[in-house]
Amino acid sequence: MHVLIIGAAGMVGRKLTERLIRDGHLGAAPITAMTLTDVIVPDRPEAPFPIVALQGDLSVPGEAERLIAARPGAIFHLAAIVSGEAEADFEKGYRINLDGTRYLFDAIRLVGGGYKPRMVFTSSIAVFGAPFPEAIGDEFFTTPLTSYGTQKAMGELLLADYSRRGFFDGVGIRLPTICVRPGKPNKAASGFFSNIIREPLAGHEAVLPVDEDVRHWHASPRSAVGFLIHAATMDTAPLGARRNLTMPGLSVTVGEQIEALRRVAGDGVVARIRREPDQTIRGIVAGWPRNFDASRAESFGFTAERTFDEIIRVHIDDELGGSWVK
Amino acid sequence: MHVLIIGAAGMVGRKLTERLIRDGHLGAAPITAMTLTDVIVPDRPEAPFPIVALQGDLSVPGEAERLIAARPGAIFHLAAIVSGEAEADFEKGYRINLDGTRYLFDAIRLVGGGYKPRMVFTSSIAVFGAPFPEAIGDEFFTTPLTSYGTQKAMGELLLADYSRRGFFDGVGIRLPTICVRPGKPNKAASGFFSNIIREPLAGHEAVLPVDEDVRHWHASPRSAVGFLIHAATMDTAPLGARRNLTMPGLSVTVGEQIEALRRVAGDGVVARIRREPDQTIRGIVAGWPRNFDASRAESFGFTAERTFDEIIRVHIDDELGGSWVK
Repeated sequence: MHVLIIGAAGMVGRKLTERLIRDGHLGAAPITAMTLTDVIVPDRPEAPFPIVALQGDLSVPGEAERLIAARPGAIFHLAAIVSGEAEADFEKGYRINLDGTRYLFDAIRLVGGGYKPRMVFTSSIAVFGAPFPEAIGDEFFTTPLTSYGTQKAMGELLLADYSRRGFFDGVGIRLPTICVRPGKPNKAASGFFSNIIREPLAGHEAVLPVDEDVRHWHASPRSAVGFLIHAATMDTAPLGARRNLTMPGLSVTVGEQIEALRRVAGDGVVARIRREPDQTIRGIVAGWPRNFDASRAESFGFTAERTFDEIIRVHIDDELGGSWVK
Repeated sequence: MHVLIIGAAGMVGRKLTERLIRDGHLGAAPITAMTLTDVIVPDRPEAPFPIVALQGDLSVPGEAERLIAARPGAIFHLAAIVSGEAEADFEKGYRINLDGTRYLFDAIRLVGGGYKPRMVFTSSIAVFGAPFPEAIGDEFFTTPLTSYGTQKAMGELLLADYSRRGFFDGVGIRLPTICVRPGKPNKAASGFFSNIIREPLAGHEAVLPVDEDVRHWHASPRSAVGFLIHAATMDTAPLGARRNLTMPGLSVTVGEQIEALRRVAGDGVVARIRREPDQTIRGIVAGWPRNFDASRAESFGFTAERTFDEIIRVHIDDELGGSWVK
């Protein structure tokens, strides 16, 4: 099995690559080769099979054909311009997130001759737009309030139609907000959800810009990789024509995040969180979904953490070698 | 007010043109000029204002710019490859229904300088795919089972995003099946819904290929034109970001259609319907929506017929000059 990861230089792409190398197989199929690509050339880790790392822009005509020339049996399409950038640069967002996706799908369609790879497409809960029900169910309509969400919703529709037509075997997964996100604090409006856990555990102060009753939907990076691998290996027959799934996650308030941190790491760590209300971030976050009913994905075997304590422990195990700054 | 109708040569486009010429205004605005375009050159009826009729293909780059050169204040985008053809010719369907729509929207976006026309986009109940609830509500998700439905759902997403961004002021309307469709019997799988009314009233035999308990969702051509005009003139502020609306209609069984025909036109006319079951058509129709809850559109003032008797009388009045073959 040749595996192609598009968007391999991102956080989830790197973790997926590591996991696949560690596993050595995807489902029952031994991995024989891997192609990694992104707009910056991805790292090429050591592996018991050949890995090619390519710099490339999926929205450039011909690039998709180059990527599928080796006829990968599984394709992870993680590449996207993120929400803020797609909002700031209208044309770039549509070019990368919509046209790039369509070029990829069409390149596969035009191969023909029985080539029908598994296609895993990362969508987003940004396909939904307020007002929401208290928990967003599997049949709720997609009315995005960003261009990014619009592009992801259009990608979902293409994925379903191209799968129905038999051009590939697609699964679209709507990822929760990934928490705890490793790395440095970033300026994304959602950054604080991870910052208030990661920074105190590293001995640094973290700023909390919203009230503790803000509720949001989370899963760990480890779960995100699990979703991707399950989407690449699951039996797709029971999906029928409904190829896009809201992934399971955990709905918690910021206050519950903080109490979990206290249980796992103690009062001293929690004391490093500094309240500094920010009306702009409060306003943005107020329009975000708070909770989902992901029964359908759960019925197909997707799983995520059930407590925020677990999410914190995953971070401590996977990123901090099991310990933190007391 | 300059009005542009794209897809003006079709049945609904011609009726809309006639109605606008008769009214002489669109809402409060007197109509000063009209541009009609389609893949075949539309008829150019007599009118008290200049009408330009153009042959053109919206999916040809540059065509959209030509159409909006006069900066129409209201645009009716009715042009589409129909369901069967979009299914048979994958590339043509995406080229006309998706790329053509996007070219139009982008041409308007790139004008800038405060140009912000009203854009009325005809979508379809084909954006929904079985299994359905008994009546499809306004928040039900779009999981189309045809490429045509996929393209319409993508057009809806674009319409909402371009409206949110302020490039135009868009309203998308999902039309019911139009009944009674004038003209000759056609081979569309849905043709029989109109055939069994229109042909007997004209003194001809009609074939009924399904059982009488088949339920479907209808509105008259006159209502369809009313929807378009209301969408072009309504206050869009209450729509918020949710720009696409399922139009009201009437859910009736074929048996109820026939009983209405008996009440309006008598037993002799009904006797011209011949039962000839067709398993293929039965199978296709089984996957179609049967009923909708169109409360949202109704709350914004869209109205349709409330009985099938009315729908038949509209046909007799508008197409048959008030009488039929007894």
